[in-house]
Amino acid sequence: MSSATARQKEPGKDHKILNGRAVGQSIREKVADKVAALKDANWHPRLVSIAIGAAEPAKLYIRNQRRVADKLGINFDDRHYGEETTREEMLAAIAALNADPSVTGILIQRPVPKHLSIKELQAAVHPLKDVEGMHPASIGNIVYNDLILGPCTAVAAVEMLKATGLALPGLEVVVVGHSEIVGKPIAFLLMSEGATVTVCHHMTRNLTVHLRRADAVFVAVGKPQLITGQMIKPGAALIDIGINQIQAEDGSSKVVGDADYETCHDVAGWITPVPGGVGPVTVSILMRNVAKAAELQKRHYEKQYGEATFVADA
Amino acid sequence: MSSATARQKEPGKDHKILNGRAVGQSIREKVADKVAALKDANWHPRLVSIAIGAAEPAKLYIRNQRRVADKLGINFDDRHYGEETTREEMLAAIAALNADPSVTGILIQRPVPKHLSIKELQAAVHPLKDVEGMHPASIGNIVYNDLILGPCTAVAAVEMLKATGLALPGLEVVVVGHSEIVGKPIAFLLMSEGATVTVCHHMTRNLTVHLRRADAVFVAVGKPQLITGQMIKPGAALIDIGINQIQAEDGSSKVVGDADYETCHDVAGWITPVPGGVGPVTVSILMRNVAKAAELQKRHYEKQYGEATFVADA
Repeated sequence: MSSATARQKEPGKDHKILNGRAVGQSIREKVADKVAALKDANWHPRLVSIAIGAAEPAKLYIRNQRRVADKLGINFDDRHYGEETTREEMLAAIAALNADPSVTGILIQRPVPKHLSIKELQAAVHPLKDVEGMHPASIGNIVYNDLILGPCTAVAAVEMLKATGLALPGLEVVVVGHSEIVGKPIAFLLMSEGATVTVCHHMTRNLTVHLRRADAVFVAVGKPQLITGQMIKPGAALIDIGINQIQAEDGSSKVVGDADYETCHDVAGWITPVPGGVGPVTVSILMRNVAKAAELQKRHYEKQYGEATFVADA
Repeated sequence: MSSATARQKEPGKDHKILNGRAVGQSIREKVADKVAALKDANWHPRLVSIAIGAAEPAKLYIRNQRRVADKLGINFDDRHYGEETTREEMLAAIAALNADPSVTGILIQRPVPKHLSIKELQAAVHPLKDVEGMHPASIGNIVYNDLILGPCTAVAAVEMLKATGLALPGLEVVVVGHSEIVGKPIAFLLMSEGATVTVCHHMTRNLTVHLRRADAVFVAVGKPQLITGQMIKPGAALIDIGINQIQAEDGSSKVVGDADYETCHDVAGWITPVPGGVGPVTVSILMRNVAKAAELQKRHYEKQYGEATFVADA
């Protein structure tokens, strides 16, 4: 059997396939230790999730986040606001969470209703509670090689490349897609690690020329099967961040990435499946950020008020 | 005569040479209009320059900044702090300037004494007064395609490329040097304009391979004559941000860029001289930021307190 599904089911049989569940698991083990240590010091990490409006698409994500948070001992506080909530009400709600010392992380689920700006809401979250790594200051800190709280998907994608064991200094990397929350942050993260990075996008004149010389390719554009095996260098690492719902031949719907898995699998040295690749790592990075944010706040309070004078858990 | 000096002296005779003085001049004309409009509205832009310690290297820059500010009608307030000033004293001084509504821009001269961190001081400046564009939030905003206050040298270098008239969407650009204040910001600025950008640095395996395919090259590494004519593509635009003091053959000292001007001039389609290229544009961008910052603060105050209830100029 040569179908992608068969391969994904037997990861042990194909060294090429980067298993996101395994990478995520090993990250979560370290997070669990951190959370336990924080609790011992009376700092219980507490993540507040904000969903606004119907937010049907977010439901699956929220359920998954709650499940992972529960396992790690992180309090997960799931809040829903009505479709009609105004900008001023949301900013006030975020300001209240910023000021509440028992809240150590704030997560705004996408999408938000059209009358609100996700960017504005995310910039309203205090940088020390910005567990999504989306505040302009969080992004700026990456540029400054100061990875405090990085954007979850970008950090997860880079973790997948690290799982190959390839040495990053001098590695020729091509990132396809220059979105603010995935493509560009991946580029800075890799520059900080010493890779030579090219960012391609829909205006790039000859994508294949760039892809053929790349030791590693990241793709995050939301176009199913954009990258085919013929376009990449034999032995390259292919990290696929796309999540696209398409109709299979039998009429059922299935989820695929931005790369054509069949042809790329044969040419690549390493490849991430979709699903089961970057996705499961992303939620682990989110929880790592939650633990890190709680640590940062603990340190901040201790510096301001001295140790053990403040108890986060009411 | 074929010497670089001769060419620079007769810019009209060589269309290849990007004249920084002319580009800077046209930027300053627009800034002068902005400053005049701000003054009419009783908002006098006021830039406070902070030099700490002996800061001999900064003296020339400060004198030049004052001269340009004076011409534009910007108040230039030149402050000097002793070598022994503590971190706490500096942070308090910056906090006081942040709180003072008559101060619309704060500029921290480099270098600072070793016991201080330039990064920490710059991050202490309020983002609305960060005329150097160095605050993490300012950098993050560029990544978000939101050029509010950009880092002066990077913005100046991009202005020089724009002066060629080349269309940026799809342009193949190679940036040599991945510093936080020049190389990386140039990369994001160009990505926002639709260019395909590769960032190279000392860990890049084969710099020439990248350079030979580039429509435009930016170099900012501080290595005299790193880039030679053989390494670039005929007709490419070469923007040289390096400023290096070297000894000429006759023993005198002279300032050169990171490119070998003689050989690159013959191959390039456009080239920036050093001195007289990016340098004179940088101070113009600084002053543009000063005017922009004053405008932003004006808008911010009007939003908070209503129009014309606040007069910046005491």
